Amino acid sequence: MSVFLDNAATSFPKPDAVYQAMDAAMREVGVAPGRGGYRQSLAAARIVFEARSALARFFGVSDSSRLVFTHSATESINIAVFGLLKPGDHVVSTSVEHNALSRPLHLAAKRGVEVTFVPSDTCGVVSEQDIARAMRPNTRLVALAHCSNVTGAVQPIAEIARVARQGGALFLVDAAQSAGFFPIDVEQIGIDLLAAPGHKGLYGPPGTGILAVAPGIALEPLQVGGTGGSASNPEPPEQMPERLESGTINTPAIAGLKAGLDFIEATGLDVIRARESTLVDQLLDGLSGIPAVRLYGPLKGERGAAVSFNVEGHDPAALGYLLDSEYDISVRVGLHCAPDVHRSIGSFPEGTVRVSPGFFNTDSDIDFFIKALREIIS
Amino acid sequence: MSVFLDNAATSFPKPDAVYQAMDAAMREVGVAPGRGGYRQSLAAARIVFEARSALARFFGVSDSSRLVFTHSATESINIAVFGLLKPGDHVVSTSVEHNALSRPLHLAAKRGVEVTFVPSDTCGVVSEQDIARAMRPNTRLVALAHCSNVTGAVQPIAEIARVARQGGALFLVDAAQSAGFFPIDVEQIGIDLLAAPGHKGLYGPPGTGILAVAPGIALEPLQVGGTGGSASNPEPPEQMPERLESGTINTPAIAGLKAGLDFIEATGLDVIRARESTLVDQLLDGLSGIPAVRLYGPLKGERGAAVSFNVEGHDPAALGYLLDSEYDISVRVGLHCAPDVHRSIGSFPEGTVRVSPGFFNTDSDIDFFIKALREIIS
Repeated sequence: MSVFLDNAATSFPKPDAVYQAMDAAMREVGVAPGRGGYRQSLAAARIVFEARSALARFFGVSDSSRLVFTHSATESINIAVFGLLKPGDHVVSTSVEHNALSRPLHLAAKRGVEVTFVPSDTCGVVSEQDIARAMRPNTRLVALAHCSNVTGAVQPIAEIARVARQGGALFLVDAAQSAGFFPIDVEQIGIDLLAAPGHKGLYGPPGTGILAVAPGIALEPLQVGGTGGSASNPEPPEQMPERLESGTINTPAIAGLKAGLDFIEATGLDVIRARESTLVDQLLDGLSGIPAVRLYGPLKGERGAAVSFNVEGHDPAALGYLLDSEYDISVRVGLHCAPDVHRSIGSFPEGTVRVSPGFFNTDSDIDFFIKALREIIS
Repeated sequence: MSVFLDNAATSFPKPDAVYQAMDAAMREVGVAPGRGGYRQSLAAARIVFEARSALARFFGVSDSSRLVFTHSATESINIAVFGLLKPGDHVVSTSVEHNALSRPLHLAAKRGVEVTFVPSDTCGVVSEQDIARAMRPNTRLVALAHCSNVTGAVQPIAEIARVARQGGALFLVDAAQSAGFFPIDVEQIGIDLLAAPGHKGLYGPPGTGILAVAPGIALEPLQVGGTGGSASNPEPPEQMPERLESGTINTPAIAGLKAGLDFIEATGLDVIRARESTLVDQLLDGLSGIPAVRLYGPLKGERGAAVSFNVEGHDPAALGYLLDSEYDISVRVGLHCAPDVHRSIGSFPEGTVRVSPGFFNTDSDIDFFIKALREIIS
């Protein structure tokens, strides 16, 4: 029995409809939307339009043209950071970010942007008061992850959105671990820039991501090129989403992402979250019952589905190796591309073992994992 | 009968093995390479490694770590242009570029890079002497498309490579229309930066592209983020290809691209080119036989598979519409994201009808197209 517990890296498996939608798009409408006026190209345009509309509805984006398709959440964050910030701007972020956000901010800092990384508590949670204290007159952006890929800690984004707004700053949320798990209504919460991957909680394939850009925000594109229309202008078009979507659109992958979203909507986001939360509770219970285990992140209350731990006297990498080789259980070990989190929770430099159940895991997957871990460390 | 003649936009259909490889990767190894040490993640890493090695061999890149996966040729070109050029640098390009290159160069010009666009002849061909005359002491880069997506014109890249090298400049080639059609050995020719899409002549899916970077060239990444390894460094890693590949790698699409390349190697690049050239000759013959047709680009000799024309007294958009609606023939009309070409060949602003056969077209597809065009204009 193969047990996949690395859904924080990518959700696996996907709903079967995702595979089918991608294959159908490849076989039937492999061409590029907006690159031809013929029917097959229009069919591609329709797939992309419907996916865009559905995702916009799902995230509370009134104007779907403000929902941009990217190739990853990393690209979305880079477009937001480098498309918005100018030398002299100030950014408030946190000490518990993934490299997808912290590396762009470090690079922005080298280019003259000031960045403050607000520390978290030992569970990985940041307070809105600390964010508020870090605000300056030139704070242009507050930027953080909604939910940690290491600890599962959830930030109080509604409160932080208010702090950002009161300080005259925009609010960028990295929803890599929360999109498809927590409900996110960007307009209701007050998120100006929402970055999310398609291949995690939204059940789409890798190679997909989104960036929702609130009305009135004009981002400079990170890359420019052909956009199908407005071809005679040497400048990229002003209109969205084309301004931020140069190059051939990845239609088959977007078809898969749409099928993933359809699965979420047919199943119910609350049903998915309840199911995953039950698995996480089972996991936390099981791990808490092993005396040598040290758990990181919140043990109760609202949290994401990533659970990190270490076992006294055991290297996390060795545990991961044995779980894989002896039990065919896939977990992730190490820093999880988020070194600052480990500095905050006390697991740097060795990192943690991370277990991240998904909707398709079963209770017996978790039991099997706990049993395997007990055997390995005994 | 549906006839697809827009292979310059994307090759369609793909070899069946491409669909199969993508579906298998999605269903079996959907996880991310380098994001876990377990077997499924290693299987993903193997797919990416084998694809990288195969593409490196195909393009004459000795060190496969210098072959970077991107999401499109547009992204490849943007990484090359913005990763290399600094204010005060000079670039020599041409008046017949696709927006994928001309827009980045226009944007670079706004940021203090000097750009010279060398004019072509009326067939769309640029001479290496004109390139040589445009060189300056601060010329850092010569950048152009190997083959036009509008006219099929082929630039003398071996000669231009020598001119660039003699002038102390690097040479960037946009191989969007030539990769998988002409043999390209970057080291033999002297190409320092080769950008190519995966979804055209290489028969891969959209969402794939490559950038080959010659040894000794250190490009600044266009985007930064998680790279799997070196996680504790706030800077992106120095080593290639990770430096230029942040975010989750698109493994299923790369599996498809590898299957596309396998198809080319099993079939023979020369066989593919001979077959497509036969179709192009048939097309040029047929079009030449219609008195009202004005053909653009080279009529004889080495050329790519894109053929552009207009018909006196007929709007290209109307022709495209009728070919699609009455005959189910897919061609592309307009500027093809390459306005400068039309200014050079005399078809601006209305553009052209572009017909681009692919390996899977048949003689009767071309006959059917010529017959349909004759009927429409009579």
